[in-house]
Amino acid sequence: MTTVLDALLTELGTECVRTGRDIPDRNFGDASGARQHSPLAVLLPRSTEEVSRCLAICHAHGYRVVPQGGMTGLAGGANPQENEIALSLERMAGVEEIDRDSATLTALAGTPLTVIQSAAEEAGFLCGIDLGARGTCTIGGNVATNAGGNQVLRYGMTRRNVLGLEVVLADGRVLRSLNKMMKNNAGYDWTQLFIGSEGTLGIVTRVVLPLHPRPKGLASALCAVDSFGDALAVLRRFDSRFPGRLLVFEAMWREYMDVAIDRSRLAQPFADRHEITLLIEAAMGDDPGAEDAFAEALAEFIDEGLIKDALIAQSGSDRKKFWAYREANYEFDRFLPKGSHFDVSIPLSKMAEAVDLLRLRSRAQWPDSVLIVFGHVADSNIHLSLSDEGYDEAVGQKMNAAVYGVVSEVGGTISAEHGIGVLKRPYLSMSRTAPELDLMKTLKDALDPKGILNLGRVLAPA
Amino acid sequence: MTTVLDALLTELGTECVRTGRDIPDRNFGDASGARQHSPLAVLLPRSTEEVSRCLAICHAHGYRVVPQGGMTGLAGGANPQENEIALSLERMAGVEEIDRDSATLTALAGTPLTVIQSAAEEAGFLCGIDLGARGTCTIGGNVATNAGGNQVLRYGMTRRNVLGLEVVLADGRVLRSLNKMMKNNAGYDWTQLFIGSEGTLGIVTRVVLPLHPRPKGLASALCAVDSFGDALAVLRRFDSRFPGRLLVFEAMWREYMDVAIDRSRLAQPFADRHEITLLIEAAMGDDPGAEDAFAEALAEFIDEGLIKDALIAQSGSDRKKFWAYREANYEFDRFLPKGSHFDVSIPLSKMAEAVDLLRLRSRAQWPDSVLIVFGHVADSNIHLSLSDEGYDEAVGQKMNAAVYGVVSEVGGTISAEHGIGVLKRPYLSMSRTAPELDLMKTLKDALDPKGILNLGRVLAPA
Repeated sequence: MTTVLDALLTELGTECVRTGRDIPDRNFGDASGARQHSPLAVLLPRSTEEVSRCLAICHAHGYRVVPQGGMTGLAGGANPQENEIALSLERMAGVEEIDRDSATLTALAGTPLTVIQSAAEEAGFLCGIDLGARGTCTIGGNVATNAGGNQVLRYGMTRRNVLGLEVVLADGRVLRSLNKMMKNNAGYDWTQLFIGSEGTLGIVTRVVLPLHPRPKGLASALCAVDSFGDALAVLRRFDSRFPGRLLVFEAMWREYMDVAIDRSRLAQPFADRHEITLLIEAAMGDDPGAEDAFAEALAEFIDEGLIKDALIAQSGSDRKKFWAYREANYEFDRFLPKGSHFDVSIPLSKMAEAVDLLRLRSRAQWPDSVLIVFGHVADSNIHLSLSDEGYDEAVGQKMNAAVYGVVSEVGGTISAEHGIGVLKRPYLSMSRTAPELDLMKTLKDALDPKGILNLGRVLAPA
Repeated sequence: MTTVLDALLTELGTECVRTGRDIPDRNFGDASGARQHSPLAVLLPRSTEEVSRCLAICHAHGYRVVPQGGMTGLAGGANPQENEIALSLERMAGVEEIDRDSATLTALAGTPLTVIQSAAEEAGFLCGIDLGARGTCTIGGNVATNAGGNQVLRYGMTRRNVLGLEVVLADGRVLRSLNKMMKNNAGYDWTQLFIGSEGTLGIVTRVVLPLHPRPKGLASALCAVDSFGDALAVLRRFDSRFPGRLLVFEAMWREYMDVAIDRSRLAQPFADRHEITLLIEAAMGDDPGAEDAFAEALAEFIDEGLIKDALIAQSGSDRKKFWAYREANYEFDRFLPKGSHFDVSIPLSKMAEAVDLLRLRSRAQWPDSVLIVFGHVADSNIHLSLSDEGYDEAVGQKMNAAVYGVVSEVGGTISAEHGIGVLKRPYLSMSRTAPELDLMKTLKDALDPKGILNLGRVLAPA
């Protein structure tokens, strides 16, 4: 080990190689709380060239490397495993260019998302990526995990918000396509391979993002519906009436609202308890009458009985109150018994059936458990948690099997936006067939034949 | 050869294996007019299982296969090369499912695009893919080439319009992810690898597409501007005022308009000749006042001097007249001297510079040549043709070198939407670096180690 560290010290200098007690807590684990090991060292390269040299050295010496961004992941992917060297992108931060004519932004991988969002806004544009961890997560991590978030309905996952990439391969070779063009069919779009590969195929060092015009005429409403079918009808009806204007369509099932009201002490928004509470936001534009059109559509849905009750935000503070329900889950978790958390997608045509099955089976196995369901339903993505007083590791595994069993039965996926990392690896075959997993292994072997890059994340080591 | 044909005949039966004079013209060449060879046989499998068996047999016998869809490609990719067996998807056609709740459509690869568009419309949705060849091209070919077209600005390239795929690998293994969900981060999204790989990595047999709400309140205008800078200002100003409503933003440079007016005998739309004529279309919605808002915005741009002259469509027939200019190129080509055609992207910030350079250099080398520039500029994509009375193969090669030289200098790409095929393969290194090409070869070798699938397209044979 001293040989490889000596080589790395020679390359980076002492200020960029941390070992032993000099390694800060942040480099030990992500936000998942998954099992951690002390990294052999933490490397802090300042340039793509240094990332390349670091990887070339580790590759030559046969040392495994775990890439680290903002450490906000929830799948344990950035947690060092035994005998791994961590490579943190934290010193490679900054927006390098905003090209207003091309409507693109180029940034180093370690740039926090919020910095990119602000830079885009200052230039009069919008960054298409937004998620709760915006202050800490980095754009390189967003790309590596194909992050989702709050505005996927309108702007898509991170994949859709990447035009160009610079990536360093396991052996130190640098791939660069800092493409600014919406169309580029010059051979395989290799950048796609690295988006969502969770650091197992290469390390992202630079990103080119498209910038969007900023939405106008924001309208928000909290609506009560009595079934997922009605929620879906509201979604399709609204979308067909105002194509492309929906920004947010979040659902909170009744158990979620019960807990939010009871544990987070939020006011009951409606007189009655309903199956689902929807948070709907749309960019109506600033044409005269646009704002009224939003309210008129909702009124019509109420007249038809699709929506049972609704509140329309009259001010920013109303909007904040609506979001307090949707964000209560960040807080109320600590008032609940321990449990397992899930991030799954379900085809919309199977969502109601899936939620019914989840309720039935969790109640049958854990009669006093609390099942919470909520999420970005327009994207087919729900988050759920299943808590029980008797929770321990064994129960957790049974809960995983129960929930992923339902997800698999209805053709859903075990990870909508958080990724596989190490925590969901044992369940990947419930969402992917053997030929798909074989292909993933083929790609991993082709790009990282020595298996030094984030080994054991997504796929089992060979 | 008889051995492999015997095996294929046993598998498919005589009605699905054509040889010799029974091979119709359509299986000989695509729309590029590139050099063709007679295929050894044309296979017409009726199911994914049959595609799989065909490939397994060809793979075992070491025969090369060229996949064929609607044969509308412009890069020679589907033209049989010497000693190749053609595999046509034409008998695998049909929309299998429209899932209204999930807003998805599942179709077999050989389905013509227009059939998919109609099915989507009948169900009250819009298919996000549209291009001139819609009546003949197939969805499998659209996916294989990552087709672009007329509404990329709003709905993206084909890549963005694919949720799930079924693909057969070179050795006959079937990969299936008929995903209907907007979010699915369960391991590598391997489908991305096949989109735009031009049949060199696998054969697409089935596709799941997202369906969009149909746009409302279509407004069209023909506008004259005096510089590309002004065109760009109109684009950004309009987009920022009406985020997400633009559907079409096409530019025709002055030489294009001259030829369209002179050779296609179209009326001069404006009193004066202008540097660029823009065709702008937007879905303004059906709120009261939305239509007026379109005209008001254009009036404001005229007042400011950004737009020099404008016509706003008052009827469907006006709109048809506007499109006649944009589509004149399909016709006026035959009135021009022979020449080379290009499909390139240029970063928008470099577009004006690139067009100036192209004019300068073409005039210097071929003083009487006709340079035509037009295209989907909001997507950074322009089509150009350079015609000259003295055109022959040698001149054509010099023209390629001149045009791709400029494209490369300004950081553009030699193919925006038509792909590389065989015709642009010699120039691929002008848009891609050596490490990028190496990675593409690594992927090709990993997925098709015997090199039987569309060999020599995109990449040179090993």
